[in-house]
Amino acid sequence: MWRDDHIYLGTAYYPEHWPQDRWATDVELMQAAGLEVVRVAELAWAVLEPQPATWCFDWLDEFLAIAARHGLSVILGTPTEAPPSWLWHQYPDVVATDEWGRPHGGRGRYCYNNRRLQEHINALVSAMAERYGHDPRVIGWQIDNELRATRCFCQQCQRDFRGWLKARYGSLDTLNEAWGTVFWSQRFAQWEDVDLPTGAQLTTTTSQILDHLRFASESAVRHLERQASIIRQHSREQFVTHNSMGVYPWLDLHALARLLDFIGWDSYPAVDSDNYDTVLAHDLMRSVKSGTPFWMLEQKNGYFNGSAYNLAIEPGLVRLWAYQDIARGANGILFYRWRSNRFNVEQNPNGILRHDGEPRRAYQEIAQLSRELSRFGDQLAMTRVEAQAAIIWSYDQVWAESAHPQYPAIRYADEVAAYHRALTQLGFTADVVSPMADLSQYRWVVAPMLSLVNPDMLARLADFVSAGGHLVLSVRSGIKSWSNVVFDVTWPEPLGTMVGMRVAEFDALPPGVENGIIYDHQRYAVGGWLEILEPLTAEVLATYDGKFYKGAAAVTRNQYGNGWVTYVGVRHQDDLLRAVFAEVTETAGPELPPRVFYTTREGKAGRFAFYLNFQPVATAVKVRYPGRDLLTRQWVQGQVTVGAWDLLLIEEDRSDC
Amino acid sequence: MWRDDHIYLGTAYYPEHWPQDRWATDVELMQAAGLEVVRVAELAWAVLEPQPATWCFDWLDEFLAIAARHGLSVILGTPTEAPPSWLWHQYPDVVATDEWGRPHGGRGRYCYNNRRLQEHINALVSAMAERYGHDPRVIGWQIDNELRATRCFCQQCQRDFRGWLKARYGSLDTLNEAWGTVFWSQRFAQWEDVDLPTGAQLTTTTSQILDHLRFASESAVRHLERQASIIRQHSREQFVTHNSMGVYPWLDLHALARLLDFIGWDSYPAVDSDNYDTVLAHDLMRSVKSGTPFWMLEQKNGYFNGSAYNLAIEPGLVRLWAYQDIARGANGILFYRWRSNRFNVEQNPNGILRHDGEPRRAYQEIAQLSRELSRFGDQLAMTRVEAQAAIIWSYDQVWAESAHPQYPAIRYADEVAAYHRALTQLGFTADVVSPMADLSQYRWVVAPMLSLVNPDMLARLADFVSAGGHLVLSVRSGIKSWSNVVFDVTWPEPLGTMVGMRVAEFDALPPGVENGIIYDHQRYAVGGWLEILEPLTAEVLATYDGKFYKGAAAVTRNQYGNGWVTYVGVRHQDDLLRAVFAEVTETAGPELPPRVFYTTREGKAGRFAFYLNFQPVATAVKVRYPGRDLLTRQWVQGQVTVGAWDLLLIEEDRSDC
Amino acid sequence: MWRDDHIYLGTAYYPEHWPQDRWATDVELMQAAGLEVVRVAELAWAVLEPQPATWCFDWLDEFLAIAARHGLSVILGTPTEAPPSWLWHQYPDVVATDEWGRPHGGRGRYCYNNRRLQEHINALVSAMAERYGHDPRVIGWQIDNELRATRCFCQQCQRDFRGWLKARYGSLDTLNEAWGTVFWSQRFAQWEDVDLPTGAQLTTTTSQILDHLRFASESAVRHLERQASIIRQHSREQFVTHNSMGVYPWLDLHALARLLDFIGWDSYPAVDSDNYDTVLAHDLMRSVKSGTPFWMLEQKNGYFNGSAYNLAIEPGLVRLWAYQDIARGANGILFYRWRSNRFNVEQNPNGILRHDGEPRRAYQEIAQLSRELSRFGDQLAMTRVEAQAAIIWSYDQVWAESAHPQYPAIRYADEVAAYHRALTQLGFTADVVSPMADLSQYRWVVAPMLSLVNPDMLARLADFVSAGGHLVLSVRSGIKSWSNVVFDVTWPEPLGTMVGMRVAEFDALPPGVENGIIYDHQRYAVGGWLEILEPLTAEVLATYDGKFYKGAAAVTRNQYGNGWVTYVGVRHQDDLLRAVFAEVTETAGPELPPRVFYTTREGKAGRFAFYLNFQPVATAVKVRYPGRDLLTRQWVQGQVTVGAWDLLLIEEDRSDC
Repeated sequence: MWRDDHIYLGTAYYPEHWPQDRWATDVELMQAAGLEVVRVAELAWAVLEPQPATWCFDWLDEFLAIAARHGLSVILGTPTEAPPSWLWHQYPDVVATDEWGRPHGGRGRYCYNNRRLQEHINALVSAMAERYGHDPRVIGWQIDNELRATRCFCQQCQRDFRGWLKARYGSLDTLNEAWGTVFWSQRFAQWEDVDLPTGAQLTTTTSQILDHLRFASESAVRHLERQASIIRQHSREQFVTHNSMGVYPWLDLHALARLLDFIGWDSYPAVDSDNYDTVLAHDLMRSVKSGTPFWMLEQKNGYFNGSAYNLAIEPGLVRLWAYQDIARGANGILFYRWRSNRFNVEQNPNGILRHDGEPRRAYQEIAQLSRELSRFGDQLAMTRVEAQAAIIWSYDQVWAESAHPQYPAIRYADEVAAYHRALTQLGFTADVVSPMADLSQYRWVVAPMLSLVNPDMLARLADFVSAGGHLVLSVRSGIKSWSNVVFDVTWPEPLGTMVGMRVAEFDALPPGVENGIIYDHQRYAVGGWLEILEPLTAEVLATYDGKFYKGAAAVTRNQYGNGWVTYVGVRHQDDLLRAVFAEVTETAGPELPPRVFYTTREGKAGRFAFYLNFQPVATAVKVRYPGRDLLTRQWVQGQVTVGAWDLLLIEEDRSDC
Repeated sequence: MWRDDHIYLGTAYYPEHWPQDRWATDVELMQAAGLEVVRVAELAWAVLEPQPATWCFDWLDEFLAIAARHGLSVILGTPTEAPPSWLWHQYPDVVATDEWGRPHGGRGRYCYNNRRLQEHINALVSAMAERYGHDPRVIGWQIDNELRATRCFCQQCQRDFRGWLKARYGSLDTLNEAWGTVFWSQRFAQWEDVDLPTGAQLTTTTSQILDHLRFASESAVRHLERQASIIRQHSREQFVTHNSMGVYPWLDLHALARLLDFIGWDSYPAVDSDNYDTVLAHDLMRSVKSGTPFWMLEQKNGYFNGSAYNLAIEPGLVRLWAYQDIARGANGILFYRWRSNRFNVEQNPNGILRHDGEPRRAYQEIAQLSRELSRFGDQLAMTRVEAQAAIIWSYDQVWAESAHPQYPAIRYADEVAAYHRALTQLGFTADVVSPMADLSQYRWVVAPMLSLVNPDMLARLADFVSAGGHLVLSVRSGIKSWSNVVFDVTWPEPLGTMVGMRVAEFDALPPGVENGIIYDHQRYAVGGWLEILEPLTAEVLATYDGKFYKGAAAVTRNQYGNGWVTYVGVRHQDDLLRAVFAEVTETAGPELPPRVFYTTREGKAGRFAFYLNFQPVATAVKVRYPGRDLLTRQWVQGQVTVGAWDLLLIEEDRSDC
Repeated sequence: MWRDDHIYLGTAYYPEHWPQDRWATDVELMQAAGLEVVRVAELAWAVLEPQPATWCFDWLDEFLAIAARHGLSVILGTPTEAPPSWLWHQYPDVVATDEWGRPHGGRGRYCYNNRRLQEHINALVSAMAERYGHDPRVIGWQIDNELRATRCFCQQCQRDFRGWLKARYGSLDTLNEAWGTVFWSQRFAQWEDVDLPTGAQLTTTTSQILDHLRFASESAVRHLERQASIIRQHSREQFVTHNSMGVYPWLDLHALARLLDFIGWDSYPAVDSDNYDTVLAHDLMRSVKSGTPFWMLEQKNGYFNGSAYNLAIEPGLVRLWAYQDIARGANGILFYRWRSNRFNVEQNPNGILRHDGEPRRAYQEIAQLSRELSRFGDQLAMTRVEAQAAIIWSYDQVWAESAHPQYPAIRYADEVAAYHRALTQLGFTADVVSPMADLSQYRWVVAPMLSLVNPDMLARLADFVSAGGHLVLSVRSGIKSWSNVVFDVTWPEPLGTMVGMRVAEFDALPPGVENGIIYDHQRYAVGGWLEILEPLTAEVLATYDGKFYKGAAAVTRNQYGNGWVTYVGVRHQDDLLRAVFAEVTETAGPELPPRVFYTTREGKAGRFAFYLNFQPVATAVKVRYPGRDLLTRQWVQGQVTVGAWDLLLIEEDRSDC
C-alpha cells in the first residue's frame, strides 16, 4: 500500500522490450540507485492480448516477482493508448475520422466513442484489474498515457454529439439562440441537420466549434472514467492516476482530476528553457486537486524525442529538475525512462541507462537524490506548497479562442503565462485554478483576458472582491457568453459595477508598431492590443501617451465592497506587470536574481524554502528567513552563494518572525 | 423610385438579428443621422424560408413599414449567398466539390450549376420579386453578396464544362490544337476524357486551367443573370445591382456589370493603407460601366473582421473615406453596418452603433457628412469623373498567370497596380478597362505585361496608336495565344510593327540581385525581370549598365501612324514609371505632396476638384485652379493647408483658363 | 551502331510538336552545327498509339528518313512517362493512389505495379522494338524519362508490398523483430494486417516506411527492367540507357544502372550555381557503372522551366558546361532541347532555337564545341576519369532519415555534399559509390554519417582499412540496423575496434548556437550536432573548447591493421574538412583559385587535365603539369590565365615526372 507521507522515486520500464534474462540486472540497478517504484505495461496491449481475448500475463507476473524481490513497488499502466493492430484491422472505424471524413491515424488518434473499442478496453482493463487489483506488489494504476482529446468526426461521434447538445440545450430553439445561427442563415430546422463541424459543412459557427471541443474533452474524460470505475471495482488500496501533458490545452484537467486519487504529469523541459512553462504546469497540477501533492509520472533525464534540437544535459540538472518538482508540490518522481528506446520515432538516448545498458551521469545524480531524500523526504512529503495568489485558467476560453483566433498578436495562453511569470519573478506562488474555483483562500486573484463569462463565475468574482480580495483583470474581459457570442452591451458590462469603467474602443496594432503608456511616472511601450478606457467610478493608474487618444486611461483601479479591481487595458508587458503586482501586493517578496526560483512548502513538520539556481554559474541569493540547509546541513542566513544547477533547501527558523 | 442625380447615404441592417421592439429606435437613429436608404434581407434566407416553400415575409413587411414611416428607402438583398441548412442537408451536392472530389464547404462555397439549388433560388427570388417588385418603398435590389467564382468539381460541373468547351472550340481537334495537348501525351481521344482539372488527373494543362477559370467566372455571372432576369420580370423602376469585392481577380466584372443598372462594391481599407488599392478598385468600378457612377454597398466605418490587426479609426477618416468614394465616382454610400454583429466570425465592433446600440464617433461623422451633402450632393451627383488615361486590366491574363505562376518576382496584378500608382501620384486619373474596351476617348493607354493577346484587341491597340494615341507596353507582352500557349514567333511579334523592336533575351533575377538602367541620364536599379531589347525601328530611351548585355536597350519608343508606343522592358520600378509617364504625358499634373489624392468630377453643374489628405497631420497643397471650397465656403487659391484626415472640395472657377 | 570511342553531340527533338514541313529545316540546322544524334519519341505515346492498339509509326518513319539523309543517328525514347488520356480514363487506377487513398495525379505519378498498365506498356515497347530494334538509323534507346520512385498506395501495391516483405523477412516474427513492433503495440498478428504506411494506419513505424521506400525504388527499377528486356529481345547493337535526375534521392541508381549499357542524366545547373551539386551528380553517374563513361541525355542550354528565377546564360557557359560534363566522364551530350517549347508548364525559351525557330547564342557555342571536339574528341573518349577517393552514398541511409528526420540541423545529403565539396576544392576527384562497392582501388574512403550498417559493408570497410586504406567517418555512424532500429550497444560499437573510441554523449545545438573545437592549433566554430568522444585506442586530433565537456575529444584517429580511421565527431564545417583532408591525404593537390574546377582523364591516348573557370572574369591558374592546351594549341606551364567562362584542356607532358 502506498503512503502519502513519503516522496517516491522511480522509473518507467518496458520489460517487453528487453530479453527476460536482463530483467533482474535492471531491477538490481534500480534498487542500487534507491528507486522504489517502477511503472510497467503502459503500452503493452499487443503483448498482454496478442489475439482477441487471448490473455498473456505470465511475463508480467514474472516481472512483478523480480521487482518484489528487490523491494520495488509497481505502477501498472492500462495500455489503452495503443490498441493492437488486430483490433483496428478488425474494426477499421476505431481509427479516428478527420474533418474530411477520412480515417486518419496517428499516436492516440482513435475514437473514444467507438462502442467496439470500448468493449475491448473494458475487457482488457477488467482482466488486468481482476488479476492485480488486490496484488500488494502493485501500489497503483496509471490509466492510458498522455490523453489527448482527439476530435473524431465519425458517425458515432455525430450521434453522440447531437445527444450531448440535446442534453445541454434542451430544445433546438435554445441552441439556435445560443449559437446565433441567425447569422448567415445557419439556423437549424431539425436536430438531424446539426452536424459535427466537418469540412463538408456549407457554413460553420464558432459556437459549434467551441461545443465540439467541449464534447471532445468530455469524451476523453469519460474514457478515463470508464477505466477508473472498473479498476475501483477490483481494488481498494491502490491509487488511480493519469500522466497528463501539463498545460496541454485540449483536455479539461479540472474535470479529469476529480476522477483520480492524485494527478500526474510528464515533464520534458528543454535544457535552455527559462523554466516558466514548467512551473506554470506544476502550479496547475497542484491546483487541480486543491493543493494536494501530485506525481511526476515521467520526468526527463536524458534526450527528448520530440524536439528539433537536444542540448546535452548539464551536470546537476537532473537532480535540480527533481527538486523543482518537489518545490512545486510533487510527492513522487518517476524518471523517464529506465533504458533508452531502440524503436521507431523514439531513438534518442533518453534513458537513465544508455542503449548499451550502462549507467550514466543521470544514474549517479538520481542515486545522490535518493540518498538526500532518505534524510528529509518524509518530512517534506507531509507539507503543502504555500500560494498567495490564484490565476484563473479557463479551458473554455482557450477553446473559444481557437474556434476563431482573430488577433494573432494576443493569445489567451500567452496572457496567462505572462501574469504567472510576473508573479513568479517577484517570488510569489500562484495556484492555477478553474473559473469555478473557490477563491476565498486567496488574497489576490488574477483573471487575464477572461472573455467568456457565465453568471456563476461572475458571482464568485464579485464575492471575492467585496469580501476584501484584490482582483486583477485584463483586456477583452467579460465580452462573450458561455456559447461564444458577444453580448449586446458595452464591454465589459457583464462584470458589473466592480470594474468601474467601460471600454470605449480598442487599437489592435500590427507587429512592430507601438504606443506607450505612463504608469507611476514610468513609460512602458505597449502593442498588440490596447483598450481605450472610460473610467466611471474607477481611478486612472495609467494613461496613453500617443495617437489621437493620448491621455486616455489604460489601467484603472476600482474599489468595490472591501476589495479592489485593477484592470490592465493593454496586452501583457512583463515589466509593467511586475510594477502592477508590486502595487497590488503592497508587499515585497524575496529579492531573486534572474534564473533563481523560490517557493515554500509548509506543514506541521516545518516550513521549507527552496532557492533553485537554473544556470551554469553560481549566483548569490539573499535568504529571506534564516535556517538550516538540509543539503549541506549548514546554518544559512543573509547573502549565500548557490552553485551552478544547484539549490538551497532551508528548513526555516522563523522563531523571530 | 431612385434618382441618379442624388448622392445617397445609407447603411446595412439585419433586423432579424435584433428584437423587433428595437427596430423603431434604430430607424429613428438612422433618420436622425441623415441616412436615406437601408439594405436588408441580404443573408436572411433561413428566416424568409424556414422550411422548404414555407414563406415568412411578415417580419420584412413590418420592417418596411417602420422604415417608410421614417423616410428610409430600402434595398433588398437576395439572400442567396447563404442557403439554409435544410437545403444543403436535403441536397448534399449543393456544397461545392473540391479538386479532390470532397464536399468542401465554406462561405459561399456552393455549386452554381447545381440544378436543385437553381430551382430553389428561382423560387425564392420569384417569391421576393412578386411581393416587392412594385413596392415603392423598395428602390432596388442587390443580388447575392460578394460573389466569388467558386470552382466546383462535381459531376454536373464536369458535364457543363464539357458542353462549354464544345461550344467554344467546336471540335476536339480544335481543342487539342489550342491547348497544345501534344505535350506530354495529353491529347484527348474523345470528349468523354476531357475532365475538370482535378487532382485525379494524371496530367493537367495550364490551358485547361485557364478555361476552367473562365468557366467558373461565367458560372457565377449566369447565377446572377438568372436572378436579375426574375427580378426584372416583376420590377420596372427598381435598380438591380451587386456588391462586388473590388479588384477580386476571379470574377470578370466587365461581364458581370453588363447585367446591372450600376455596379456596387464593398470597401474595407486598412487605416494604415497607402490607399492605392482602394483607388484602383474605385477606378475599376467606374470603368466597368463606362464612367457612370457606382455605389458603395458596404463602406467600412469601424473595425474590420477579416484582418489580423485592426487600428482604431482615426478621427475624420470615416468622412474622408466617403469623400474619396465620391471623388472617384460613387453616387451612393452605405456604411457597413448599422450595429455591431454578435455572432460567429464577425464579432468585432464593426457598426455605426457599438454592440450596446449606442452611437459612436462614426455616427457623428456620418451625420456631418449628411449635412454637408445636403448642400451640394445633388450638384456633385450629376458630374462624371474625368480620366485622362486608360489602364488595361485583363482577367484572362490574371487567370493564365495563376494557372502556372512561373516567376514569383513578377506578377501581373503588381504591374498593373504599379502603373496605376505612378499615374495617381502624378495627379492623373486612369480608367481601368477591359482589353476589349473602346480606347478612342483616351490620350494615353497603358497595357502592362499583356502576355495573352487575341486579334481583336491587337487591332484595337493598333487603331488607338495610329490615330495618335500613346500606348505604354511593358514586359512579357504579346507572347501567348488566348489559350495560354506561346506563339512560335519572336516576342512580341504578334503586336506587329507598332512596337518597333524585338526581345532578344530576358534575365529573371532572384530577390536581392539587381542590375541598373540609364534613363534620361539617371540610373535606376532594376530587378526581377529584365528584357534585352533589339530595336528595329524604335528609338532607345534607356540602356542597361551592367552584366554582359551592358549597353543593350531596356526601354524603347516607336512612332506608329500618328501615335507612339513606349515599351518598358523591365519590371515596374516606381520612380522609373513616374519618369516614363512624365515623358509620355508631356504635361505637368498638379504638384501633390505624399498621401494627398487628387481627382476631378465635371458636368453641367461645374467642375469639382478633390484634394484628400490621408494622414494624421495637416499638409500644404498647391491648388491647381482657384475656386470656392464647398466645405468651408471659402475662396481658395495658391498654397492652402488641408487638415489631418480632411479635404478640399473646390468648385473651380476656370473662367480665366 | 554506336561507338564507345567517340564523344557524341546531339539534341532532343519533338517532331510531333512542329509542322512536318519544318522537319527538314531543323535537321539541316542540326547537321550544320555538327550534331550527330537526335533523341525523339520520348513523350509521344498518344501520337504513336492514338487509340488502344492503333499504331501510328508513319510520322516516325518519315523523321528517321530525314535524319538519316542528314547523317544524324537517332535515340528512341520509350514514351512511357506519359500514358495517354484514353488509357487512364479506361483504367482510372493507373493514376497513383496517395497515402489518403485518393487518386492523385501529376507528372509521372502512375502506378508501376498496375497490371493493366504493364500490359499496355509491354505492347507499346514491343511494337516499337519490333519495328526499330534492328534499324541501323537507331543507335540506342532511352527508357522512360527521369524516373521517379512514385509511392502508390493502391490495393495492388498493398498486395505486392506484402509479398515483397514475405520474401525479405520469411516469417512474420522476423518482421516484427526487425521493425521493433513491440513498440506502441504495433506488433502484427497476421500478414493481412501489414499495410502500406497510409494515413489511415493507427500507428506507423519508421522501419515500415524505410521498407516502403525500398519497395517503391525497386518497383521503378522493375518497370525499367521490363522494358529493357523487351528491347533486348529485338535489338543487339543498340544501347539501352535512361536519363536519370542526378542525385535524386528516391531511386537507387546503383541498382538501376546494372540494367543499362551506360547511365545518362539530365543536368540543369543554375547560372549562379557554385557547381558543386552538378559535379557531385557527375561523380555519382560515373561511379554507378564503375568509372565508365556516361551520357548527358539532357544538358541545359537555355532557360530552365523548373525554377523561380532564370538568369540569362552567360556567354561561353553552354560550351563550358559541356566541357565540365566531359571532364567528369561524359562521352555523349544532348542539349535540351532543339527548339523552345510552346505548351503548358514549359514555356520558357529553353531551346537551341528560340520559339521563332532562329539560331541563337547557344547554337553558335555548340557549333564551336563540335569543331573543337572534331579535333580531339575521340582521343578523350578513350580515357577514364582518375579518382583518388571514394565517398559512400547510401540510398538506404537517405530513406531511413526521411522516415523520421529528427534533427533538421543535420542531414545526410548535406554531410555527403560537404565532404565531396572539400575534396573537390582541394583538387581531388572522388567516386561516389554504393556502401557495397569494391573499395580496394581507392587510397581514401569517406563515409559521412553512416548510421545504417549491415555486416557486409562493415566487413568491406574493415578490409579496406586493414589493407592500408584511410577511412574517414563522421557523426552518427554505426548506430542503426539495416531495418532502421538502434542497436543496443554503445555508439558506434558495430563498427568494431577500427574506430578506437566510443561516443559518450551528443550535443544537438539549435540554429545560431555554437561551440568550438581546437584542431591543429586552430579554432573552428561548430554547431548543429556535436559528439563527445571517449578515445579507447584512438589518438585525439581535436578537442572542444567550451561548455561542460571542454577538453573532450571531437576528432580522433586510430590505426587499424595497416590503415587508419579518422572520425570527425562534429557536423560538417567546410574549412575544418579541408584541414582534415589535408592531413588524411598527406599530399598537396593543385592550387586552385575559387570557382576553378580541376579533373583529369587518362588512358592509352594520354592524360588530359581540365581547368574550368566558372566565373565572369578571367583568373590565373598555376598549371600542375605542363603540356599543350588542346583548345589554343599552345604549350602551357606555370601560371596561366583562363578566360571568363573558359577553360584549359591540357594534354599533359609528364615525361619528367
